[in-house]
Amino acid sequence: MEVSVFLSDAPHLRILCLLRDEGAVSRAELGDRLELTRPRLLAEVERLVATGLIAEAGMAASRGGRRSTLVEIHPRLRFAAVDLGASSIDIEVVNGRLEPVAAYREAADIRSGPKVILQRVNDLLAKARIDGAYERLDAVGIGVPGPVSFRDGVPVSPPIMPGWDRYPVRELLAREHSCPAVVDNDVNIMAIGERHGGVAHSIDDFLFVKIGTGIGCGIHLAGAVYRGIDGCAGDIGHIQVDANGPVCSCGNAGCLEALFSGAALARDALAAARAGESPALAERLAASAELTARDVAEGAAEGDVTCIRLIRAGGRRVGGVLATLVSFANPSMIVIGGGLAQLGHVLLAEIRSVVYRRSLPLATGNLPVVLSELGSRAGVTGAAVLASDMAFEQAS
Amino acid sequence: MEVSVFLSDAPHLRILCLLRDEGAVSRAELGDRLELTRPRLLAEVERLVATGLIAEAGMAASRGGRRSTLVEIHPRLRFAAVDLGASSIDIEVVNGRLEPVAAYREAADIRSGPKVILQRVNDLLAKARIDGAYERLDAVGIGVPGPVSFRDGVPVSPPIMPGWDRYPVRELLAREHSCPAVVDNDVNIMAIGERHGGVAHSIDDFLFVKIGTGIGCGIHLAGAVYRGIDGCAGDIGHIQVDANGPVCSCGNAGCLEALFSGAALARDALAAARAGESPALAERLAASAELTARDVAEGAAEGDVTCIRLIRAGGRRVGGVLATLVSFANPSMIVIGGGLAQLGHVLLAEIRSVVYRRSLPLATGNLPVVLSELGSRAGVTGAAVLASDMAFEQAS
Repeated sequence: MEVSVFLSDAPHLRILCLLRDEGAVSRAELGDRLELTRPRLLAEVERLVATGLIAEAGMAASRGGRRSTLVEIHPRLRFAAVDLGASSIDIEVVNGRLEPVAAYREAADIRSGPKVILQRVNDLLAKARIDGAYERLDAVGIGVPGPVSFRDGVPVSPPIMPGWDRYPVRELLAREHSCPAVVDNDVNIMAIGERHGGVAHSIDDFLFVKIGTGIGCGIHLAGAVYRGIDGCAGDIGHIQVDANGPVCSCGNAGCLEALFSGAALARDALAAARAGESPALAERLAASAELTARDVAEGAAEGDVTCIRLIRAGGRRVGGVLATLVSFANPSMIVIGGGLAQLGHVLLAEIRSVVYRRSLPLATGNLPVVLSELGSRAGVTGAAVLASDMAFEQAS
Repeated sequence: MEVSVFLSDAPHLRILCLLRDEGAVSRAELGDRLELTRPRLLAEVERLVATGLIAEAGMAASRGGRRSTLVEIHPRLRFAAVDLGASSIDIEVVNGRLEPVAAYREAADIRSGPKVILQRVNDLLAKARIDGAYERLDAVGIGVPGPVSFRDGVPVSPPIMPGWDRYPVRELLAREHSCPAVVDNDVNIMAIGERHGGVAHSIDDFLFVKIGTGIGCGIHLAGAVYRGIDGCAGDIGHIQVDANGPVCSCGNAGCLEALFSGAALARDALAAARAGESPALAERLAASAELTARDVAEGAAEGDVTCIRLIRAGGRRVGGVLATLVSFANPSMIVIGGGLAQLGHVLLAEIRSVVYRRSLPLATGNLPVVLSELGSRAGVTGAAVLASDMAFEQAS
């Protein structure tokens, strides 16, 4: 099984993660919190100061005895977080506390191939350096919209990424930026992000369902990403939900994402507008010559019954698959994210209704089904977490 | 998440498991195999001899230097392994190498309730003692046909076990036999058994699908049973596969096990016999006034097309659900067990066909879908493994 490589609970990792997630902490408090003996703690801290990963940050308030020195993640640390979508590049450069110091978003077609896309990533990062966001990077984390061999740092047979199969993404980024790099699936990094700074904070077992151009599921079990044997666990977009449904990009009929995804919703909205079933959609089509999920969301907000019906029908499809996964995996939370999460509470209500009706009562007794809190920042947040984990791990 | 409690890699556990699984081993080989220093190994072995868990077993063949003493699991050790089915009690008393020294099988209706059924278990174990199978037990492992809180050692809202909800099974067995006891779901113990001594030997990530009176799935991830947040992970029998299907015992319509299970197959066989669709089934019905899955298996073996059609239809239903689970979990093997595995290769071929056609190529590239090797002994084998794990763990 490919689980996260970051399962170590070595003292230096626990110190670094605590300082990353909570900011400056006194030596005394660190020792208490991590249950390390004083000599062991001092040795670890000294070593981390020497490697430049942490720095002293003044004196803590007195706890009664001698005042203890504060330590923090070194303010110089910088990580690059990259989230490649089917049609976008999102980049953040973050400091050691994972706070963004620079952010860039551009439209880009992943089908342009790895050379073009990675060159644009490197150009954006060069711009960030010129802008003063960093002098050197300590690690790069990148998410791509397809299956990844996490161990090898390469995409594997990604259906919507022609030219990327086994392309050495990790190796090339690491060489270009002279630092560790880590590559993961886009949905996995969104799940990691949501667990770090979103609605799944401190939840160990949950599913993150991305509904966007495609549909995928990030699986967290026992606090770690579960990737499956070939790195393609969570690839739920091609589950067949209707043998008589439309043909999918994968060649099979009736896949979940052929019935409900950004592209499917645009297709169904266009058909409804042309058939005269939806005044809201017909008006928007006349104005802009095309329709997107956003038009359906706006129509639904105005009370257009066809828009509401389209969202509900999609929610029922997603809910049916999730009911199956809940019976199978018995998670403690489901988070709905990705572009179509903008469809909001109409979508959520329908998903909830199907999940709660069709799964075992025991498995849904305490099961929140909620929207992502981080929205479009979930991916870069998770990529930054992965990058920092990698840098900290390699500091051992 | 409820994972197995047995994740420790303490040296005493590794020594005990190696001796349990491989028999007598010399001290020198133990040290090499477990990468323990000689003083550490000798201290651990001495302690385990003192506690009566292992014993010396003569001298090993010379490896060139001083001859090393063999050690083995103490020949006195005995574990009781109990597999409660919907309509049966299987018990084995095994030695420390998990070899059966006594075995009992009786018909029993789980709906008789916990007092009656556990009394029968205790009566059978008393008989085993009188028969000389043991003097005292070192641990008892028991599997029950319903969801279990592994942590609490109790069944939780088990649908086909009236009267068992939160009944203190573990506590009562432990008290009665003055030894540790462990309670798990029947499918989980079958999966553990198949991994210990069957086709999934040494496989870390696999699904064990039991098709019998009901349908359930044992999930092994990273070498441990995955039980989900409430202990009901793998409860796939009530996944809806046909909204217009027959009503299930759970009250919903079209659940997997309402369409294909021992009871569903008997129902469909009876209908086919009465409708004159199957000479093989009509003949058997005339002879015995009822039909079971075995009749369908025999009919299929004789080439009866209706019997073959019934098995194939069931295989398609199971295959459809498994295709979904393969896309989700990306396991490295699927094992088919339970009473209906006797339907054999007709069933297996249909399941394989659907799984391979409907799941992602990446996830099925190296995915064996195979029949259980242990058959009806999978449950007791797994219960024995769990019992010994528990006894070894508590010896720390």
